[in-house]
Amino acid sequence: MADYIEPRILKGFRDFLPAAEIARRNLVEKIEACFRSYGFVPIDTPALEYADILLGKGGGETEKQIYRFKDNGDRDVALRFDLTVPFARFLAEHRAELSFPFKRYHIAKVWRGENSQRGRYREFTQCDVDIVGSDSAASDFEILLIMAKTLPVIAGGEVIVRINHRGLFNRFLSRLGVLEFSVDILRTVDKLAKIGREETHALLSHYVGESRAGEILDFIGIKGSFSETLVAMTAAAGPCPESERLGLIHSYMADAGITASVVLDPSITRGLDYYTGVVFESFLAEMPGIGSICSGGRYDNLVGLYSADKRSPLTGVGTSIGIDRLIAGLEALGRLQTELSCAQAAIACVAETAGGTYQALAEKLRKKGIPCEVFLEEDKLVKQFQLAEKKGLRWLIIPAAEDPLGSTLTLRDLAKRENQEGLTLEEVAERVR
Amino acid sequence: MADYIEPRILKGFRDFLPAAEIARRNLVEKIEACFRSYGFVPIDTPALEYADILLGKGGGETEKQIYRFKDNGDRDVALRFDLTVPFARFLAEHRAELSFPFKRYHIAKVWRGENSQRGRYREFTQCDVDIVGSDSAASDFEILLIMAKTLPVIAGGEVIVRINHRGLFNRFLSRLGVLEFSVDILRTVDKLAKIGREETHALLSHYVGESRAGEILDFIGIKGSFSETLVAMTAAAGPCPESERLGLIHSYMADAGITASVVLDPSITRGLDYYTGVVFESFLAEMPGIGSICSGGRYDNLVGLYSADKRSPLTGVGTSIGIDRLIAGLEALGRLQTELSCAQAAIACVAETAGGTYQALAEKLRKKGIPCEVFLEEDKLVKQFQLAEKKGLRWLIIPAAEDPLGSTLTLRDLAKRENQEGLTLEEVAERVR
Repeated sequence: MADYIEPRILKGFRDFLPAAEIARRNLVEKIEACFRSYGFVPIDTPALEYADILLGKGGGETEKQIYRFKDNGDRDVALRFDLTVPFARFLAEHRAELSFPFKRYHIAKVWRGENSQRGRYREFTQCDVDIVGSDSAASDFEILLIMAKTLPVIAGGEVIVRINHRGLFNRFLSRLGVLEFSVDILRTVDKLAKIGREETHALLSHYVGESRAGEILDFIGIKGSFSETLVAMTAAAGPCPESERLGLIHSYMADAGITASVVLDPSITRGLDYYTGVVFESFLAEMPGIGSICSGGRYDNLVGLYSADKRSPLTGVGTSIGIDRLIAGLEALGRLQTELSCAQAAIACVAETAGGTYQALAEKLRKKGIPCEVFLEEDKLVKQFQLAEKKGLRWLIIPAAEDPLGSTLTLRDLAKRENQEGLTLEEVAERVR
Repeated sequence: MADYIEPRILKGFRDFLPAAEIARRNLVEKIEACFRSYGFVPIDTPALEYADILLGKGGGETEKQIYRFKDNGDRDVALRFDLTVPFARFLAEHRAELSFPFKRYHIAKVWRGENSQRGRYREFTQCDVDIVGSDSAASDFEILLIMAKTLPVIAGGEVIVRINHRGLFNRFLSRLGVLEFSVDILRTVDKLAKIGREETHALLSHYVGESRAGEILDFIGIKGSFSETLVAMTAAAGPCPESERLGLIHSYMADAGITASVVLDPSITRGLDYYTGVVFESFLAEMPGIGSICSGGRYDNLVGLYSADKRSPLTGVGTSIGIDRLIAGLEALGRLQTELSCAQAAIACVAETAGGTYQALAEKLRKKGIPCEVFLEEDKLVKQFQLAEKKGLRWLIIPAAEDPLGSTLTLRDLAKRENQEGLTLEEVAERVR
C-alpha cells in the first residue's frame, strides 16, 4: 500500500499557478476599477446557502447541476450556482438597509456540477454588475455604456455590443398571433448563430408554420444602422413604448459617443426566460466565435420569490462578464499578460550574514513603490541569475560584499545579460522603476 | 401556506453589505500590495477537494468540523477548511513547475462547521503568506519583517510581534527530562494568556510535577530585551543551533531597524503541533486582548503526506493574517474606514433626455481618475440631495438644464450643504478630486 495520498484535484476544478493567477487578478482588478468608477459598490454573500433559497421554484436543470448536501446539523444546503439568486435573496432581506437605485457588483466563485467539456468548469468566477430599483432607460443605458466603454479596456481590443429588446420582440410575436410560443421561439432564435438559418427556420416552422417562421427570420435580421433596424422593427411590431425606449437609448448613445461599438441586433434574445426588457451580448471583434464575453439584460421583479409584499417589486438591469471565456479569448489572441512575478527586481544574497541589510535596502525601494524581492540563500551569482530568470525577474541588484548598503551596487539586466557597476541606490531605482 | 420563501442565511455565515465589503476589500488590497512588494506571488486552489486529500491522516477535530459530502458522481468531497492543506497538495502536484524558494500568498475563503460563538464564523477569509524550500534564517526573518512592517500599515497603528523557537523550547524540555510531554506542555503554555499563571502551573504539574512546572514557568518568562531573554533561554537550554538562529534573526532585525516592534517571548508556542522552528504571534498594541491578528511559524516537510519521494522534503515558514479578527479590532478602535460608496461625486439628473450627456460629462471625470456616479431618475433636486447623502457621497454636480455639457455647472457640497455656481468641469474636477 502506498504510504502517501496521491495529489490530485476534482475534474472540472483548477489550480491556478502564479502566472495564471496574476493574470486573473490583474483582470479582476481592472474590472473592479471600472465598476467603481461608475459608482458601483461591492457586496458579498455566502458560498453556501439553504437549498430551498437557491433552488427557488426551480428544479430541472439547476437541480441536476447543483452541489447539494446535508450539513452536520442536518440542514439541506447547497453551493451557489450563480450570483443572481443570492442577490435576489440579499435584496429581499436587506431592502430597508439599502438606497435605491442600488448599483452593486459582485465578483465571486460559483459551482456547477455539469459535464466538464472544454472550457466548461465546475468552479468558475462570475462577475456581475446590476442596477436595481430603476426602470429608466438611463439605467439600461448605463449598463450598455459600461460594456461599451470598459470591455475594450479590459480586453485590450475592439468589442462589439449587441442590444435588443425582448418586449419589442414579443410585440411582434403578438401581432403575428404566435405569442403563446414566445419562450420556445426566443430560445430557438437564441441558437441562430450556432445552428444556422436553415435549421432555425425548420425549428420555428415546427411551432408556427413555414410562412410565419419566414417572417420571424426576416424580423431578426439586421437592416443596417441602429436607426434603420429600429425603423424596420417598429414597422413590424407597431409603435410601442419598447421601440421608444430603444430610440431614447440610441440618442443617449449618440450623446455619449458610443454608437460605433453598439449594434441593434433583433436576433439577440438570451435563452434564459427571466429577461423582460433590453438584452445585451458582446463579442471580441477579432474573435466573435468564442461567443459572448459579457451578457445581460433587464428583468422584472427580482425579489418576488423572497418577498411577502407583492405590491412593490424591484426591477433591475445588469450584465455579467464571463471571465474564463474572456481569458481564453485573450490567450488565443496572444494578448493575455503573463507575468511570472509581481516584482521586477530582486536583491542577490552575497553574504548570508547581511540578510537584514539586504532587506533594509529592499525596503528603500519598496517605499518608492518599487516591489523588490530579496534572495534568501547564499549561492554562486550565476545560480542566482538563473533563479532570477526562472522567476521572470528583469533585474538583479548585487550589493558589494564589503558595503551592502553603500554606493557600490551592481545592477544585472537579466534580459540583456549585462551588468552595470558602481551604481547608487537612487540610480538603481531610476533604472528598475 | 406562504407564497414566498423566507429570505435567510445559514448560522455562522454572513452577507457583506457595501460598507462592510468596501472595508474588507480595501484591507485585502492593502495586504496584497504589501505581499507583492516583497515579491510574493498569488495562487489559487479549488474550494472543493477530495475528502481524503483534505483530511489526510487527520480526523479528530477536523473531521467533525469539515463540510463533507458525496457529489453527484458519488465522489467523497469536502470544502477546504484551511489554505495550508491545499497548499501542501498543490506543492506536491506542481513541484516541477515551480522555482524554489517559492514565495506565495493565498487569500481565499475557507469553511468550518464549528459552533458559531461570537466572532467565530463558519465561512471566513484566510490570508496566508509562505516561503517554501528554504531553511535559512533569512526566510524566517523575511516573514517576521513582513509582519513587523506591513501589519502597522494595515492596522493603522502599533503592532507588537512576538517570536519564539519551538526547537529551543524542546531543547530545554529535553534537558529537563520531560521531552516526552512536549506536545501537552506546548499546548498548555499556549493557553497561558487565557488561563493565567496559576492554572498553567497546575496543569503543567499534572504532567511533570510541581518543581519542574515551576522551572518551565520561569523559562517562559520574558527577561527584558531580546538579547537578555535569549541569553537566559540559552543558559537554560544549552548552546544550540536554535539559539544561534534566534541570534542571527536578532542581528537581521537590528540591520533592518525593526527591533522596537519585535519581542522574544518564550511563552509563544502555537498550539498546533506541525510547527518545528520559529513561531510568531502579533497583537494590536492598543488591544492585545482580542488575541493574535497574525500568526505562523516554520514547519517541516509540508508535502510528505502527498509525495512518494520521502528523501526530498520541502520545509517552509509562513504566517496568516486573521482578517475577521483584525477587522473586529479595527472596528472596536473606531479605526475601520467605513465608506458607503466607491465614488465621492455624482451627476444629478436634471432632465431625463440628457442621460447620455450626463454620462459623457461623467466619463470626462472618470478619465481624470475621478470615480463619478450618474443619477438615473429625474426628481426634485432636494430628493437627489437626500439620495446622495444616503449613499455617502460628498459632492453632487448639477448641470444646467439648457447646457448640460457647458460651463455652468453647480457643485453641491453635501457635507457643508452649500452650492457653488457657474463652475467649469475643470473647476469641478479640482474640487472633487
